[in-house]
Amino acid sequence: MLAVHLENGRIGVREVPVPARPPGHALIRLLVAGICNTDLELQRGYYGFSGTPGHEFVGEVVECDDPRLAGRRVVGEINLACGACDWCRRDLGRHCPHRTVLGIAGHPGAFREYLTLPERNLFVLDDALPDDRAVFTEPVAAACEILDQVVIPRGAEVAVLGDGKLGLLVAQVLAASGLAVRQFGRHPEKLRIAALAGVTVEPPGTDPPAAAFDWVVEATGSAAGLAQAIRMVRSRGTIVMKSTVHGDVGVDMARAIVNEITLIGSRCGRFAPALDLLQRGALHVEQMISARFPLAQAARAFERAAEKGVLKVLLA
Amino acid sequence: MLAVHLENGRIGVREVPVPARPPGHALIRLLVAGICNTDLELQRGYYGFSGTPGHEFVGEVVECDDPRLAGRRVVGEINLACGACDWCRRDLGRHCPHRTVLGIAGHPGAFREYLTLPERNLFVLDDALPDDRAVFTEPVAAACEILDQVVIPRGAEVAVLGDGKLGLLVAQVLAASGLAVRQFGRHPEKLRIAALAGVTVEPPGTDPPAAAFDWVVEATGSAAGLAQAIRMVRSRGTIVMKSTVHGDVGVDMARAIVNEITLIGSRCGRFAPALDLLQRGALHVEQMISARFPLAQAARAFERAAEKGVLKVLLA
Repeated sequence: MLAVHLENGRIGVREVPVPARPPGHALIRLLVAGICNTDLELQRGYYGFSGTPGHEFVGEVVECDDPRLAGRRVVGEINLACGACDWCRRDLGRHCPHRTVLGIAGHPGAFREYLTLPERNLFVLDDALPDDRAVFTEPVAAACEILDQVVIPRGAEVAVLGDGKLGLLVAQVLAASGLAVRQFGRHPEKLRIAALAGVTVEPPGTDPPAAAFDWVVEATGSAAGLAQAIRMVRSRGTIVMKSTVHGDVGVDMARAIVNEITLIGSRCGRFAPALDLLQRGALHVEQMISARFPLAQAARAFERAAEKGVLKVLLA
Repeated sequence: MLAVHLENGRIGVREVPVPARPPGHALIRLLVAGICNTDLELQRGYYGFSGTPGHEFVGEVVECDDPRLAGRRVVGEINLACGACDWCRRDLGRHCPHRTVLGIAGHPGAFREYLTLPERNLFVLDDALPDDRAVFTEPVAAACEILDQVVIPRGAEVAVLGDGKLGLLVAQVLAASGLAVRQFGRHPEKLRIAALAGVTVEPPGTDPPAAAFDWVVEATGSAAGLAQAIRMVRSRGTIVMKSTVHGDVGVDMARAIVNEITLIGSRCGRFAPALDLLQRGALHVEQMISARFPLAQAARAFERAAEKGVLKVLLA
């Protein structure tokens, strides 16, 4: 079978054996996968990764222990948790210190014709949910995570900084959850997608007002975004930090301290609320698909995904 | 009357008229005042301050409108809030955007023989509460602020980083509130004071363990302290940032985000819980007094307060 291989920043494809299925795992045939910014970061060498990347996928179960999964279309929670530690007992396997992570750490990813995942990681899809929508489950779950971490009063105004893939999903998820979202970005064509979902879109390039929001979500993917968020949040306000910026980030912490600001790091989320939103058609995600490549052209797909202005690139 | 005057980093004393008492304000004769790290920062020029500094004080009301205050010993909330804005209505005058701040911004400070403050800022002291203990009310309130911002389960382990004045007060306040405090510092003679209050004191210079605490209070006064706090906090844990570090602070935000850490800035607090702790004798604050100078020797007092190893320096 074909598998994407990343090594020393180079994306290639290899012919490899279909993976053995460990007990309790399902063997899954890939239907469609999405390239995430984390995949681009793996390519840039941030985690010393080599192997098959990919963690956003929709697949079909071709071999399994649990008969209810046989032949079903599924998406899968990307953290392979131990199931026994304190984190796992609290249903927070996403923080299990013994975990491996699909296509990121210790478990080969989804950019291959067949992959394996523990059956307990899988979510069976409704027939009515198309592959091209379901493939957004994992990043939508990351957006939903915000609402598992903070209680934002219904109807409250939330500023979202950034109009990349994550910024668009965050803005849409928050709007779909009854919040008054104002999104600040630079790309009219991207912001238009958020506007479809009821997000109030600021004119591209608008400088956000200072000390104006009780809730700010930083999703720019840049160090400057966090500094901006600290300027625009009100005293005692909350900044949710969604974009992972590498290396030391220079931050005016004096302002954060004097104004008693809360900063919350936010990463992966639960799949259930994400699937609910996608099934209800509450999000405009198909409009975020910029391109689609076969697995064999993964190198081109990665190049395309890294281009300015490009949103989701799919592999199928 | 005598008043300390700070200008261009120089501390002097001047003979000035006794201040006029505006309506609703009390005229207060200074009994004792404390030099805070913020005063040393004012001297270093961080806020472009010139005038009379000082915001930790105990005084005696010599003129007032409210007869219940006449002749009483008082301490005073340092934020002179407008009383009318949203913040003030929520009893958060400490964040009132129209506020002035005693000895810090727009209102002459307490390092003078007589000062004025709005009567509503004053707290009458029990006769049994000595001046040398009551003078710690404002910094103890800043330590108590933590417990107004986060709900830490009773008995939970909290790490306190730093054994300066603020670190010692934070550790003692948290221990007095039923938490299991472990303090990391460098000075055996300072840590000994925290130990008196039931704090578990780590051997001076101990490198704190990584990812070991759900709750960390950063009170080192250094940029390195925050980086250390991020290393030692567990996934989904909380860091309370008590020490105001100026300029951009380099922080490994990727770790904070991946581990979904919460960082909370924390500044001034309410006087009521602080007075309660001081009146109950729950804190060992008198032991933190390193030296005492008359107002006329304020320059020497500031020099002494800036020396390594020195804790609280009083002016009286």
